Amino acid sequence: MVSITADGPIWTLDLGEDENRFSPDRLTEIESALDELEASGEPAALLTTGTGKFFSNGLDLDWVSAHPDEFEAYAARVQVVLARVLTLPVPTVAAVNGHAFGACAMLAIAHDYRVMREDRGFFCFPEVDIQIPFTPGMDALITTKLTPRQARDAMLTGRRFGGADAVPAGLVDAATSQDALIAAAADLVRDLAGKDRATLGTIKATLYADAAAALRGDARA
Amino acid sequence: MVSITADGPIWTLDLGEDENRFSPDRLTEIESALDELEASGEPAALLTTGTGKFFSNGLDLDWVSAHPDEFEAYAARVQVVLARVLTLPVPTVAAVNGHAFGACAMLAIAHDYRVMREDRGFFCFPEVDIQIPFTPGMDALITTKLTPRQARDAMLTGRRFGGADAVPAGLVDAATSQDALIAAAADLVRDLAGKDRATLGTIKATLYADAAAALRGDARA
Amino acid sequence: MVSITADGPIWTLDLGEDENRFSPDRLTEIESALDELEASGEPAALLTTGTGKFFSNGLDLDWVSAHPDEFEAYAARVQVVLARVLTLPVPTVAAVNGHAFGACAMLAIAHDYRVMREDRGFFCFPEVDIQIPFTPGMDALITTKLTPRQARDAMLTGRRFGGADAVPAGLVDAATSQDALIAAAADLVRDLAGKDRATLGTIKATLYADAAAALRGDARA
Repeated sequence: MVSITADGPIWTLDLGEDENRFSPDRLTEIESALDELEASGEPAALLTTGTGKFFSNGLDLDWVSAHPDEFEAYAARVQVVLARVLTLPVPTVAAVNGHAFGACAMLAIAHDYRVMREDRGFFCFPEVDIQIPFTPGMDALITTKLTPRQARDAMLTGRRFGGADAVPAGLVDAATSQDALIAAAADLVRDLAGKDRATLGTIKATLYADAAAALRGDARA
Repeated sequence: MVSITADGPIWTLDLGEDENRFSPDRLTEIESALDELEASGEPAALLTTGTGKFFSNGLDLDWVSAHPDEFEAYAARVQVVLARVLTLPVPTVAAVNGHAFGACAMLAIAHDYRVMREDRGFFCFPEVDIQIPFTPGMDALITTKLTPRQARDAMLTGRRFGGADAVPAGLVDAATSQDALIAAAADLVRDLAGKDRATLGTIKATLYADAAAALRGDARA
Repeated sequence: MVSITADGPIWTLDLGEDENRFSPDRLTEIESALDELEASGEPAALLTTGTGKFFSNGLDLDWVSAHPDEFEAYAARVQVVLARVLTLPVPTVAAVNGHAFGACAMLAIAHDYRVMREDRGFFCFPEVDIQIPFTPGMDALITTKLTPRQARDAMLTGRRFGGADAVPAGLVDAATSQDALIAAAADLVRDLAGKDRATLGTIKATLYADAAAALRGDARA
């Protein structure tokens, strides 16, 4: 169950306490949470995290198996959510509390900043090993956030990065103890929460124009 | 008052001793200085700096307020100057002697190299705080010179980077004492001043093709 | 004389023991070697190296001088080989045993990884000094692998990077003694050799789509 709660300027989006895969219902809940945040008028920043062992484990492959005819529309919807987070008109940070795999590692990448628990959990793009190549939109999302070498190491190897490895790999900005994770993430965006939303949104839309278009364009294809 | 003076291969473009904002007159003086440099035939490198507290403080907002109907043409002209410096067929370095804000931080970014005084002055893109989003051309100029993380830190925060912070942020190549600034900047380009201009100009025009087109395309829009 | 030999998953492509310039015959031999590797079905990785003083010294300028009418077709063919290596559906590493200049430095850059001998040999893009600007395809190849600052340092200066300098310059992943070179290169790709080729090939084709298209597009021009 997804929840969003505001504490001062920090809006914490909790993806749930299970594997938190992107089921259609969870996507609806995430969209509603973002709607609520965007409808607010006060200074705000988005902090996305999960409870327990997982940040989020990616696409809901059980649901996909049961609805093969709907896969394209489902994947397109995931990409639209990624594009929305990428260009959200408030500062954003992912507090990666546990495993972040595939599409949910992409959700983390779509945030402005990322902090990861240092002792447990992996940040991983398993696409090369599960034989599902990145779509052009997903490719564009990842490469708009990483250097060429970082993109190579993350995208061509299927490597699972623990927190300590994810920092030099450029996947996250910092790794902390579990206890310090949320505070460290909030510290990265609290002072930025008052930026004018229209301006910040336009700047992000321009900065990430190609990736957002690729994510949304794949969605239309 | 802008001046350009050659000492051996080093052509020093001094933007002035005031705030050195991009007034139309100053733009004309800069263009004339670049014309003079480009008309010369000997080995040459451009070193751009200012005198006193400011490198340059950005657009001439007083002039803009007095000439609201001319803003678009004025902004387009600024972008053409940025594109020209970006692809100038000689090595270029900015010696950032003091504050470099907004469009003038972009002028510094357009040079091949940047050195900054370490003890005073800020390098800053204030766009997010003054509620003037980057144009597509300005966005392309900055992102063609920085890594994705550096672009995020410079463009989404409005942060003012002192010399010591600007080096790890990738905004400048080095920070030095005020006394050593000009010599350090000249050292970066002196040995490159003899490169064949047609070749170097073509290489830069290709390397920065997208950003130059965006700057000039915005100019035409 | 080019040779390719498989030892377990490591396919070693030896460019020869001379200057190993890209003569049309050597290009044919390289293409045949890649054909052989691609026709194999077992886990495989490509390790490209040379024997002696040179990795490869670039275009075959003697042949070009003798066949001026064929230069365009020849250059186009070189670019197609570069695009093929860039998107080869197996992991690739260049073991730079000696001088790598111009088009052959590009061949090394086209590999996923690069290791270089630390005590002798230079990695160099001499284009700015020999007055042959990078084509758009070559520009795209280099910039898809380097950060903006690394691209500037490699492409605008003509600097010759020894192994120790090439690591911080981002041109190679590591520098080793001559004796350790091949083993260090093989270690980078051995564990990746079993990736599904169709998946890895598609991921690379997407990741490097713009550069491959520019290389092949120049080829068609």
